[in-house]
Amino acid sequence: MVSDLKQFSIKTEVDQIIDITKFVQKAADESSINDGTVTIFLPGSTGGITTLEYEPGLVKKDVPAILQKLIPEGPDYAHHQTWHDHNGHSHLRSFFIKPSFTVPIKEGKLLLGTWQQIILCEFDEKSRSRTIYCQFVG
Amino acid sequence: MVSDLKQFSIKTEVDQIIDITKFVQKAADESSINDGTVTIFLPGSTGGITTLEYEPGLVKKDVPAILQKLIPEGPDYAHHQTWHDHNGHSHLRSFFIKPSFTVPIKEGKLLLGTWQQIILCEFDEKSRSRTIYCQFVG
Amino acid sequence: MVSDLKQFSIKTEVDQIIDITKFVQKAADESSINDGTVTIFLPGSTGGITTLEYEPGLVKKDVPAILQKLIPEGPDYAHHQTWHDHNGHSHLRSFFIKPSFTVPIKEGKLLLGTWQQIILCEFDEKSRSRTIYCQFVG
Repeated sequence: MVSDLKQFSIKTEVDQIIDITKFVQKAADESSINDGTVTIFLPGSTGGITTLEYEPGLVKKDVPAILQKLIPEGPDYAHHQTWHDHNGHSHLRSFFIKPSFTVPIKEGKLLLGTWQQIILCEFDEKSRSRTIYCQFVG
Repeated sequence: MVSDLKQFSIKTEVDQIIDITKFVQKAADESSINDGTVTIFLPGSTGGITTLEYEPGLVKKDVPAILQKLIPEGPDYAHHQTWHDHNGHSHLRSFFIKPSFTVPIKEGKLLLGTWQQIILCEFDEKSRSRTIYCQFVG
Repeated sequence: MVSDLKQFSIKTEVDQIIDITKFVQKAADESSINDGTVTIFLPGSTGGITTLEYEPGLVKKDVPAILQKLIPEGPDYAHHQTWHDHNGHSHLRSFFIKPSFTVPIKEGKLLLGTWQQIILCEFDEKSRSRTIYCQFVG
């Protein structure tokens, strides 16, 4: 087999940063592909997927603070005029961080570093139920 | 077939943000690969590829404003001493946003969200003719 | 063959931006896969992989300056309370730039632009020996 698509769903809270490594590894365990890559993809425009050392200082304080400094939540985005919502910052954070991330796999294992977790960033202004695709090729 | 390379060309204007979803979907329609991933790639160092909800508030105002706030166009970049051009900001924006983006495909369809478009960002200081590669694997 | 994993190691210095294009091309030369993609991946949470025109103005001045402006090195990150180190900025820069980058390959050649190099960013506060994976699929 050359490609194999898995998916999982996850409930998110506002501004939550979630360690999804175990869900992706579980998908890899169930996949018929043992060597190649997995692309972890969020089908949406107000979230992001990247890696981080998942420890409370970064997750609870430093990452939220740098996001708020660089791309602040606020009432002033033109996007709010289009839909009368308030998540302009959510879209802009997703534009920068992007909702796609690709990791190599060897013998069924994600080739991550010891202190490196795959994270889903919920940038939206309300709780969401998110579907995440794991597309394996190899 | 395991990989299939398609490409298309597009004329860009300064600071333009272009919805290229239909071009990528057309490449997918023409590709022999129906399940796997497509990597959309700009061979250049002054553009970026990411996703965005393609609506005028974000495209015309919010994205240009946040880029100008974080990585301003200006006369002061050391890059300008090397080539005597003025696109230091273009290179730095490309460094952050990156010119590569990978999307899963299932049964010939890009697995994008409803409000999620693939966009090409022209960060350069002049109009360009851009070639975009769509490398399918699966 | 559908996937082929290569790797190389490289010594880095603090805040160094390294052109790794030739190492990735060498891996491509040695790979059995001539058409498809290569995902260049750093297994760690204090580095990044992206592209840049590798010229001294950008490499030595503009990129370090914009990183220091946007995500400054400093004593104030909560991450420092967890491990008593001082590399909070390193993790945050890696969160934004990400340690994964995918490039198309055709007939054994990376489909990069003329002025586009693949770069490894060492964001950590000390010299490191870094292993870089090149996962080919195609």
